[in-house]
Amino acid sequence: MENKKVLLIITDGFEDIEALGTVAILRRAKIEVDIFSLRKENIAGSYGTNLTLPIFNNNIDLSKYDLLFIAGGKEYVELERSSTYIDVIKYFYNNDKYIAAICAGPTLLGHLGYLKNKKYTCFKSMNEDFGGTYIDKYTVIDGKIISGISAAGVIDFAFNIVSTLTGKEYCEAVKNSIYYYDR
Amino acid sequence: MENKKVLLIITDGFEDIEALGTVAILRRAKIEVDIFSLRKENIAGSYGTNLTLPIFNNNIDLSKYDLLFIAGGKEYVELERSSTYIDVIKYFYNNDKYIAAICAGPTLLGHLGYLKNKKYTCFKSMNEDFGGTYIDKYTVIDGKIISGISAAGVIDFAFNIVSTLTGKEYCEAVKNSIYYYDR
Repeated sequence: MENKKVLLIITDGFEDIEALGTVAILRRAKIEVDIFSLRKENIAGSYGTNLTLPIFNNNIDLSKYDLLFIAGGKEYVELERSSTYIDVIKYFYNNDKYIAAICAGPTLLGHLGYLKNKKYTCFKSMNEDFGGTYIDKYTVIDGKIISGISAAGVIDFAFNIVSTLTGKEYCEAVKNSIYYYDR
Repeated sequence: MENKKVLLIITDGFEDIEALGTVAILRRAKIEVDIFSLRKENIAGSYGTNLTLPIFNNNIDLSKYDLLFIAGGKEYVELERSSTYIDVIKYFYNNDKYIAAICAGPTLLGHLGYLKNKKYTCFKSMNEDFGGTYIDKYTVIDGKIISGISAAGVIDFAFNIVSTLTGKEYCEAVKNSIYYYDR
């Protein structure tokens, strides 16, 4: 199996466990994750994780990625204001690639109209009328969109990405390897 | 309420979500966490998170901390070989302070005899006869020792620390704020 590739672009205020926790689960499952910063090398998470990252630029070939991962946290305001970032979302959506978004992340999709007629979850108090059906669960898959509610559901959200990209059987093996159980 | 203080010392091979995910939940709950590296400034997690941290030294006043957090990952080998680190564990145990350990972490306590007659969990395949009772759950509290099974249980483990240090009522409010639910 060729390794699947995930793109994550973050900026100051990323929610540490949502971003880095999801990445840890994906990489554990041998999914490749490239992490870029939106506009400067040194950024800090909402809960103090300081990272030095390469800066995203338009020369990066998006076609090699299978999935765009949108993390949550206060960074969503800056991400949503960035035309560079919005263009990345549009590229994934328009090319029928997967998008996985957690917490505040799915609201960016909602504002672009991408949650219309979709089942999804997001940080509950940030839900709006996006024209879809809000599901009060940790994580929801509908078509090419995987959504997660919050930091509380990060493990389940990450495994939904693993399952989507690598198949159920392989995902179950990874789950079992860390004694994950559906409670 | 005076803020509670947690000490975390990590080294190369720390499990990213176990270490930084737990820290994110604790800091969300306004618990102060100081993170040190065991012996060099730049370290890398098992899943690629690169951190630059202050190096732990013996002049650091351990008495100000309420709890020692032992993360999991391959780092456990180096931690266990370090007399500096083992002395820190002994200090917390001998001064009747809390110790929270996840995945491989509890085995360090087991090897020191600190799990005798205790209920605990740890990464299942690493369990030995520590003289206590292994519980096959995500997280277990017995007296001053809080244990977690693996990355899969990190959210539940972190909330057991929050509950222990800040009380059930406050912990419930933090859980509710991110729509955590006992499933």
